[in-house]
Amino acid sequence: MELHKLYSSLAIRSDRKIVVLLIDGLGGLSHRDYGYKTELEYAKHPNLDRLASCGATGLLTPVLPGVTPGSGPAHLALFGLDPISFQIGRGVLEALGIGIVPEPTDVLARGNFCTVDAQGAIVDRRAGRISTHISEELLALLRNIHVPGSDIELHAVQDHRFVLRLKGTGLDGDIANTDPGMVGTKPKRAKALTPRAETTAEIVNAFVDQSFDRLKDQSNGNALVLRGFSMLPAIPSLQELYGLRSAALAPYPMYKGLARVVGMNILDCGNTFPDQLRALERHWEKYDYFFIHYKYTDSCGEDGDFLSKVNHIETLDSSIGPLVRLDPAVLAVTGDHSTPAALKSHSWHPVPLLLVAPTCRRDGSTAFTETVCATGALGHMESKYLMGLLLAHALRLEKFGA
Amino acid sequence: MELHKLYSSLAIRSDRKIVVLLIDGLGGLSHRDYGYKTELEYAKHPNLDRLASCGATGLLTPVLPGVTPGSGPAHLALFGLDPISFQIGRGVLEALGIGIVPEPTDVLARGNFCTVDAQGAIVDRRAGRISTHISEELLALLRNIHVPGSDIELHAVQDHRFVLRLKGTGLDGDIANTDPGMVGTKPKRAKALTPRAETTAEIVNAFVDQSFDRLKDQSNGNALVLRGFSMLPAIPSLQELYGLRSAALAPYPMYKGLARVVGMNILDCGNTFPDQLRALERHWEKYDYFFIHYKYTDSCGEDGDFLSKVNHIETLDSSIGPLVRLDPAVLAVTGDHSTPAALKSHSWHPVPLLLVAPTCRRDGSTAFTETVCATGALGHMESKYLMGLLLAHALRLEKFGA
Repeated sequence: MELHKLYSSLAIRSDRKIVVLLIDGLGGLSHRDYGYKTELEYAKHPNLDRLASCGATGLLTPVLPGVTPGSGPAHLALFGLDPISFQIGRGVLEALGIGIVPEPTDVLARGNFCTVDAQGAIVDRRAGRISTHISEELLALLRNIHVPGSDIELHAVQDHRFVLRLKGTGLDGDIANTDPGMVGTKPKRAKALTPRAETTAEIVNAFVDQSFDRLKDQSNGNALVLRGFSMLPAIPSLQELYGLRSAALAPYPMYKGLARVVGMNILDCGNTFPDQLRALERHWEKYDYFFIHYKYTDSCGEDGDFLSKVNHIETLDSSIGPLVRLDPAVLAVTGDHSTPAALKSHSWHPVPLLLVAPTCRRDGSTAFTETVCATGALGHMESKYLMGLLLAHALRLEKFGA
Repeated sequence: MELHKLYSSLAIRSDRKIVVLLIDGLGGLSHRDYGYKTELEYAKHPNLDRLASCGATGLLTPVLPGVTPGSGPAHLALFGLDPISFQIGRGVLEALGIGIVPEPTDVLARGNFCTVDAQGAIVDRRAGRISTHISEELLALLRNIHVPGSDIELHAVQDHRFVLRLKGTGLDGDIANTDPGMVGTKPKRAKALTPRAETTAEIVNAFVDQSFDRLKDQSNGNALVLRGFSMLPAIPSLQELYGLRSAALAPYPMYKGLARVVGMNILDCGNTFPDQLRALERHWEKYDYFFIHYKYTDSCGEDGDFLSKVNHIETLDSSIGPLVRLDPAVLAVTGDHSTPAALKSHSWHPVPLLLVAPTCRRDGSTAFTETVCATGALGHMESKYLMGLLLAHALRLEKFGA
């Protein structure tokens, strides 16, 4: 039985509230410039440490040992879905990242404007990284292209990148990239990878043909390539599965989008952590499950800026009071994945998890760090099990079997 | 998705080298004659301890909790294959143990010479444990037996044991043992367990009939029984899966054979650990992944010789310098399974794992023992995940999902 269906079959009503504070890219790596400590070990976070001392800790493996997750699988796992069964393609994720939540019948792709020579061969796959503004102008040239069988939407992302969204019935996203991934060759024709995607591939090719015609005299990008054709998988909502009225406090579009995918309401929450907590207070009575997304730790990790990541952990810690005072029945503090400054990227390393609830078996953790979590009583588990743990600690799961 | 296919789908090229030092039967058991320490806890191994202090530790469960593995599944798991999906039968393993790597189209069985009475009933299943030399003489009587549909090879193993190898096309190993497993009954006819094995069973029976005819007047074994009919499963190579140029430094035929099964090159490496490390140095530039097999710890465990196992651990530790100086990007020190002297056999107990890499999250391990590993930051995992961890730490896996 799929995991979420098992948990769903056991779900019962309760008024106990669950809060997940997700510190993006939380996990770090021993850094030789900082005494071989991780960012979380180096940072001072007395409030998180105090929470650890009245809760239990553990480590979450986002997907499987050694596997570095993108944001899509990392979040779906934390929302209780098997990230290998439910995969979100590049086109869909790109759409989520600019605030578009596709219908499950839409086909999405990520587009790049590019530059081709007189023979049609690509000379610059990013059209000189033109500005978003210029991309907007090029997209305006393409917006009234009509192809029977689908409504076509185009949305600028950043620089040379955009999203193509096909809306209609009977569309299928099983289509190979038109981006050949290299210069010196022409953009490929869209090719269906399964027979049921053939009509959609024809629509894409008709759109591309008309686009090339309209772009051919443009100096800032005279062609385009598409990749990551995908559809949003049919994903049940937290309401359907567990009877949870759920809400997200996430300033960034990507995380709003991922929360929408599992049916969360997106709340206005400003841009800072104190803003998010004020919004939490305002909406406290109306929901059972809150997802608070704290982004800045991940960005600093990606930048390789150890001390800035440390600083953002400390800032969060110093502002956490209002959340603690709301006294949720279950509070989980964790990350979607590790983003060690030492690697300047997402990584496979397990992520610290802190769970506080009256129903927790306290494990004597005295701090919230990777090393403490590695020996915490919650043990090491895949992130997809967190949802079951949260529901259980909120007494929202009944007994399995007689 | 099968685990090795998931890892394979993420594999990227890198020049970072991986070394697995496999100490056979490494894990031990608290021994009451030695202060309830394990062999690894009792032994002095300052060099391994020093490695632990700059790496991370954990425990590997070879197959599943409570399951004691044979050498086949224990090694396949360490090479990244699910040991329950990829099973190596007794006949195939017996062949590997004497240096034969079967083709995937061959059928292998383990044979015993036995003694039968005038009615054909077995009176000694091992023919008095005749010497290998006598077995060779008996095999010589059988070598020119011809049965249409297959080439038959016979290879002495040790004492009364031999390997039967059938080569041909369309052969199938799904055949029940002819060995009844008890005295007082006749050897059984080879019986196909599936229709597609019927032709092969007929070939086996034709061979057995002719053999009995030729053996009937021999005093040192006048019959034979066969068991463990099996074929080598189709196993992808480490090159195909991960782009790894891999090599084994393994003095014993069985481990050479298991390494060949996943496509490793077998290097001449002498018989001692220092010899193996000299071979490692010689071949360092030509491979990405090295498997070093250290056998003696397992043999002493099987003999119940606690102190000798301790001694072999200490010997290895004192000779490890050249390996450390080569400074592999990722070094794993572990075992295939536990062989506690207290049990005189393989056991199910998890195996200590030590991983050293600049990409390791250091966990403050101060020694390499079962107890330290049990709380190490790598946690407890099935051995089949080690390959993914090695690849990840060598930065040889790309991100999963967008």
